[in-house]
Amino acid sequence: MAEAESTIDNGVNVEALINAREALTEAPEAAQFKWRATCEWKNGTHSNTTVEGYFGLGEEHRHRTTFAFDADHPEVFASEDKGATPVEIVLVGLASCLTAGVAAVAQYREIQLRSVTAVVEGGMDIQGILGIDGDVRNGFDGIKVTYKIDADASEDDIKALVAQSQKRSAVYDIITNPTNVTVEVN
Amino acid sequence: MAEAESTIDNGVNVEALINAREALTEAPEAAQFKWRATCEWKNGTHSNTTVEGYFGLGEEHRHRTTFAFDADHPEVFASEDKGATPVEIVLVGLASCLTAGVAAVAQYREIQLRSVTAVVEGGMDIQGILGIDGDVRNGFDGIKVTYKIDADASEDDIKALVAQSQKRSAVYDIITNPTNVTVEVN
Repeated sequence: MAEAESTIDNGVNVEALINAREALTEAPEAAQFKWRATCEWKNGTHSNTTVEGYFGLGEEHRHRTTFAFDADHPEVFASEDKGATPVEIVLVGLASCLTAGVAAVAQYREIQLRSVTAVVEGGMDIQGILGIDGDVRNGFDGIKVTYKIDADASEDDIKALVAQSQKRSAVYDIITNPTNVTVEVN
Repeated sequence: MAEAESTIDNGVNVEALINAREALTEAPEAAQFKWRATCEWKNGTHSNTTVEGYFGLGEEHRHRTTFAFDADHPEVFASEDKGATPVEIVLVGLASCLTAGVAAVAQYREIQLRSVTAVVEGGMDIQGILGIDGDVRNGFDGIKVTYKIDADASEDDIKALVAQSQKRSAVYDIITNPTNVTVEVN
């Protein structure tokens, strides 16, 4: 199996992931990660959030660079549109998580990918966030992800690839299932 | 009331939001929004997602510029760390949504903000995404948001501000409650 994989290259180091899985099975405490973001309010609905370090494998790590994200509301909400809206940023997280998963699963399954694109669309009735109708939720009323994948595989194998990515996706889980969030003021 | 507000300026146009609320109460179909993101796979777990247009108030809109986001996995996952991880990007969405809400609610309540920062931390047992233990979820086991706010208000008023932002936050709702996600391959 390992030999055959050498001709398929999606840029994912499957061997390292298999090794990590084995190592963490024997040392489950190393599997406890903490991911972080630090948000600074700028003005109005505009903020800048940075992602710099995280905890995992028993120690602190730093990303190779600090990643910074401007977020804002659009002009139709009387804001200045200095960044994507927070809900669009969540869609970015979902799209990128599923897409990384597609590449990783394809590598495991020895499927050469040529191109992968996903369009993610979330519907929202803004009567929720505006407080017009208490029965309307603040968040999305549903999200649709549509993949276009060019790969060296049958249609069924490509569909199975996407299904397996969904099954292992952290962000898909975060969005489809409830997560406890505590908010404190210091 | 409107007169008194003029001395408090957090950069949020509360009058426009009140007008929008009135207009949408009379024309609820205009409140139906569609937010979008388009993700392109680059290599390995690295992707680039763009946010460009959205639908709302009965028509298509474009952001003032196209917002682009690189996402990747870190080096400890044998990836190249060319962007924040998808789960960190979700934390960015949460932090920026709550922070925009704090500014908007402060404006309504005539509280002058001087500075607002939030640290968001999400715990994750990666035995889930690695498929080591089927009882461990893929997503966060919980998220903690800690605000530091310097404002012209009492501690209780500041806490109430944050609580109200939480109540109206789209991303807080998306993370704490389930949302249906359908994934298709075209």
